[in-house]
Amino acid sequence: MLIVLSGPSGVGKGTVRQAMVNKYGQQFKYSISMTTRKPRPGEVDGVDYYFVSKAEFEEEIANGGMLEYAQYVDNYYGTPLKYVNQTLESGQDVLLEIEVNGAMQVRSKVSDGVFIFLAPPDLHELQDRIVKRGTDDTATIKKRMLQARQEINLMTNYDYVVVNDQVDSAVNRIEQIIASEHLRVARVLSTYQKMLGDN
Amino acid sequence: MLIVLSGPSGVGKGTVRQAMVNKYGQQFKYSISMTTRKPRPGEVDGVDYYFVSKAEFEEEIANGGMLEYAQYVDNYYGTPLKYVNQTLESGQDVLLEIEVNGAMQVRSKVSDGVFIFLAPPDLHELQDRIVKRGTDDTATIKKRMLQARQEINLMTNYDYVVVNDQVDSAVNRIEQIIASEHLRVARVLSTYQKMLGDN
Repeated sequence: MLIVLSGPSGVGKGTVRQAMVNKYGQQFKYSISMTTRKPRPGEVDGVDYYFVSKAEFEEEIANGGMLEYAQYVDNYYGTPLKYVNQTLESGQDVLLEIEVNGAMQVRSKVSDGVFIFLAPPDLHELQDRIVKRGTDDTATIKKRMLQARQEINLMTNYDYVVVNDQVDSAVNRIEQIIASEHLRVARVLSTYQKMLGDN
Repeated sequence: MLIVLSGPSGVGKGTVRQAMVNKYGQQFKYSISMTTRKPRPGEVDGVDYYFVSKAEFEEEIANGGMLEYAQYVDNYYGTPLKYVNQTLESGQDVLLEIEVNGAMQVRSKVSDGVFIFLAPPDLHELQDRIVKRGTDDTATIKKRMLQARQEINLMTNYDYVVVNDQVDSAVNRIEQIIASEHLRVARVLSTYQKMLGDN
């Protein structure tokens, strides 16, 4: 099963992903991204990223070898398809932690993936603020409501919303989602059908 | 949210439902069924069942007041719609524990319900038996495989499959499914849209 963790930048995707790896990292494989940017001090090839040249990255793109990718500040970042497919074929779950644009690229290719949107806690708290007023001026609330609408529009492309109010709670909710998705009829049926030799 | 727990007869639906009520019954309302059969010693009207006359039950059916119903051995059994709707409108989850025919009636009326199929553990163990052979003769395995196919056909109408190997584990899995379903984008979105006054 492919699990995609995404959400607006600054929401804490990396922190939640790291906490997931620490807590129950043996239950899934985290997919390491590929990049053309130079390693920072302490970063290890094949652990933090696969570090490659621009030519190598562009060759992967040309060969259809990237599940998703994007360009930021002259550097490429993306998910190599090969590793993801190998892990899925071995029967293990794969976790991707990627930007919203990348998640939409994956969605169009892997329809049975589990897409989790990590939402900022202030989206959840917005209702209180709107109701109470007083503490924020109208302009601030209006600006935040506009941003909230944008975040909500992004959400519609995902299966689940997890509010990142506390890293531990967010990790627990994601763990529940993963466990529960493994019990979905569509996933279980194929196992039973294989068992009966109907497939 | 409407949660429907169902499965083949004899799978232990009642035991799992009772364990759910004991463990975290404050988080949902169990929908009490209506029946025309006489109360057994110790059974209380409005606790175990709503006990009504045949005429009253048939009037409810005629008025469209039953979410689902069936007739067994000259008696009616069913779920009154009124109580379910009132509870859902108050924002609480409702749990139904019903037969597979009833579940299909509910499915056709409540498309956003969560439909959980409780599966017998021997369906899960069947693979081992098929692989090992020896312990069962061919006729027994064939008969069990036929039954398994029927159970698997029923399953396709549900969202989740929970194997009732141990009551406690089954209850935990159902708890995870319910928690995770509350995080589904389709359910969360309407809350946010109401918050922003977009609905």
